Amino acid sequence: MPPSDPTPHRSASLRVDAGRLVRRLNELGAIGAVHGPNGEHGCARLALTDADRDGRELVVTWMRDLGLSVSIDAIGNVVATRAGTNPNVAPVMIGSHIDTVRTGGRFDGNLGVLGGLEVIETLQQHGIETDHAIQVAFFTDEEGARFAPDMLGSLVYVGGLALEQALDARAADDGARLGDELVRIGYAGSTPCPTASSPSSFIELHIEQGPVLEEAGVTIGVVTGVQGISWTEVTITGRSAHAGTTPMRLRRDPLFAAAAIATEARRLAGDMGGTQVATVGRFEVFPNLVNVIPQSVTFTIDVRNTDDALLRRAEQHLLQFVEQICTQESCTLQMRTMARFEPVSFDESMINRVERVATAHGNSTLRLPSGAGHDAQMLARVCPTSMIFVPSVNGLSHNIAEFTESADIEAGANVLLHVVLELAKPS
Amino acid sequence: MPPSDPTPHRSASLRVDAGRLVRRLNELGAIGAVHGPNGEHGCARLALTDADRDGRELVVTWMRDLGLSVSIDAIGNVVATRAGTNPNVAPVMIGSHIDTVRTGGRFDGNLGVLGGLEVIETLQQHGIETDHAIQVAFFTDEEGARFAPDMLGSLVYVGGLALEQALDARAADDGARLGDELVRIGYAGSTPCPTASSPSSFIELHIEQGPVLEEAGVTIGVVTGVQGISWTEVTITGRSAHAGTTPMRLRRDPLFAAAAIATEARRLAGDMGGTQVATVGRFEVFPNLVNVIPQSVTFTIDVRNTDDALLRRAEQHLLQFVEQICTQESCTLQMRTMARFEPVSFDESMINRVERVATAHGNSTLRLPSGAGHDAQMLARVCPTSMIFVPSVNGLSHNIAEFTESADIEAGANVLLHVVLELAKPS
Repeated sequence: MPPSDPTPHRSASLRVDAGRLVRRLNELGAIGAVHGPNGEHGCARLALTDADRDGRELVVTWMRDLGLSVSIDAIGNVVATRAGTNPNVAPVMIGSHIDTVRTGGRFDGNLGVLGGLEVIETLQQHGIETDHAIQVAFFTDEEGARFAPDMLGSLVYVGGLALEQALDARAADDGARLGDELVRIGYAGSTPCPTASSPSSFIELHIEQGPVLEEAGVTIGVVTGVQGISWTEVTITGRSAHAGTTPMRLRRDPLFAAAAIATEARRLAGDMGGTQVATVGRFEVFPNLVNVIPQSVTFTIDVRNTDDALLRRAEQHLLQFVEQICTQESCTLQMRTMARFEPVSFDESMINRVERVATAHGNSTLRLPSGAGHDAQMLARVCPTSMIFVPSVNGLSHNIAEFTESADIEAGANVLLHVVLELAKPS
Repeated sequence: MPPSDPTPHRSASLRVDAGRLVRRLNELGAIGAVHGPNGEHGCARLALTDADRDGRELVVTWMRDLGLSVSIDAIGNVVATRAGTNPNVAPVMIGSHIDTVRTGGRFDGNLGVLGGLEVIETLQQHGIETDHAIQVAFFTDEEGARFAPDMLGSLVYVGGLALEQALDARAADDGARLGDELVRIGYAGSTPCPTASSPSSFIELHIEQGPVLEEAGVTIGVVTGVQGISWTEVTITGRSAHAGTTPMRLRRDPLFAAAAIATEARRLAGDMGGTQVATVGRFEVFPNLVNVIPQSVTFTIDVRNTDDALLRRAEQHLLQFVEQICTQESCTLQMRTMARFEPVSFDESMINRVERVATAHGNSTLRLPSGAGHDAQMLARVCPTSMIFVPSVNGLSHNIAEFTESADIEAGANVLLHVVLELAKPS
């Protein structure tokens, strides 16, 4: 059998069972379900909450039902392994995450993990063995909605963040310590992290979470890399005083300063154009009363660009603006970098492989960078990596109305199956 | 004895015991005390909380210890009465409030109530009777920090708001119903409200809560009236989506819209000048996550002016701006008037009386309008009313650093004593 691609093997005609995959997505999506007034069915499974634990239990049950060996590492990453026939080659890893934001959907992350299980089950059903072991992983706290930084579990997995530092992360909502929450939900595992042995390659199937594929009428996104991401938490402290008796000229109003910064962030991103985005998503006021000029405001700025030089320019401009408005308003300033990731370029041969397989199976394709961060960008530090995107209806994600058509899920899972088959090599 | 002022009576040389008054202020201020890092001693006794109940119990105990008859009405207003010698004339009422904002001080409101008790105790000590009964009242939920509108108790007292509507008000913090909270803390009283019999006059001693007296180096503010107040709650709903993958041009971001409005409110108030102020004090975001464009933002706008025409102009400008930015951002809008009070002018003879008494006792005086709302503006609807202001250090109020010098408290309380003596007429 020739070692070159494409593989002339009976596996060439294999197809996933899309119905089974969609049923698993719905079953996992029932945990922490959030229903909207127009039939929306989203999820709230913030990392290491009870809902996250229940989701983990379900997925681990499915992994064990498929006969996989399951390991849990010290940061709570879960890796299920199907043995290969050649013990001398490293596994091919499929992975993503199952935690969600507070108003998340059923697809973000979950598709990559359950798509991996669908690949495994398809191989089992057809009695197809592979040279390389195949792993399906889900990583802890990808969203970063509860513990910063995002992609925390995969970052620790590749040695990009010290385990102890990650375990000491504090929850934005209730101040809980990440390490304590891991123990509480029973996912402080015994497998060392960072991993002692990298996979031979990593592939992640994910919804696009944006409108580009839908607008272009394309089924498969071939992901070339990931935007650089910069998260900053800003706390501005002024002087709380009576809203009626304090003349405008004597105010030290941190809410005005924060509002001016949010307005400037929008203007800047619009003026820069290209892939530049800027978002103020969290905004908390103290004491938060109608007739009191606030004492302090804490808010976050999320800035992203595919070009690191432009990202740095945006960061610098906003920093200058923040300092200037705080000086002007006689407010004091605290800033903290919550996360900072440079743009990532995926492995060219992996990108080409995804594109070729997708095209060979009759899909329209489009190369695009990812606007969101993904576990794949962390794995790209240790092995050849790429991603497969499928369209998001109305470009929505991080929203309970997030949806992807079953036909697109099926197409994406079949591309995943055949990319993995090429990489793992049928025996 | 001639009925005209000034009263040639032995009471002319009476003085309050300032030490006793300050001790009471501190003792009441110990309930719900909030201490700051630099020795600040503020209070958090939001209306109808357990802390408010404990404060009420202490003040009612003092009222009873002074031999006063205490009535509690259906909205929880408490009125203590010292009988007069002439049953055919209506009482002179001294009053204010003892609820505070979440980061309030020990003086705001409390001074007017405890100053009233100090007047009573001074009269008792010296065996001075008066023709008119003298009442000391504290009104429910003056601050409006927990239940809108502010000055709720005095507004119901004078018939300006239906009792049932007020009882159905919901708490901004926990959604509790005002009527239920009154019952819970034991202050749903049996005296009818609105009151069946108005006082003959009303006088309120209060800290200025602003910087005007301090800047002018004046001890006694003679209050000519109260600014018009407009409170609006605005809810803007957009579309929550992923902060990384949603291009700027496709966003419907309610936080950007709200930030632009807060920025415009500041610009407008600065440009209008005069007594115009505008404040965004409450600002709540859903889902409030770093990497999610918010779904909705609810915030408040507090706008005030002594001139009703200018106040209306400010309101109209902001309303147009709100509608315009929501249209531009494809967001939906809900607006609710939480409170709207026209400017109030106090009774000219009462203003003159305060000024004359203050001057006769050797104080510097300044006529000024109040930037804050006060129970006095409600009582002004039913009887001749004025207020006595004393300076706030650094103009601070609604802040735990709120402070007024004991010498100024003493001066203000002595003016209160002699204004009340003139009105109640020593027998």
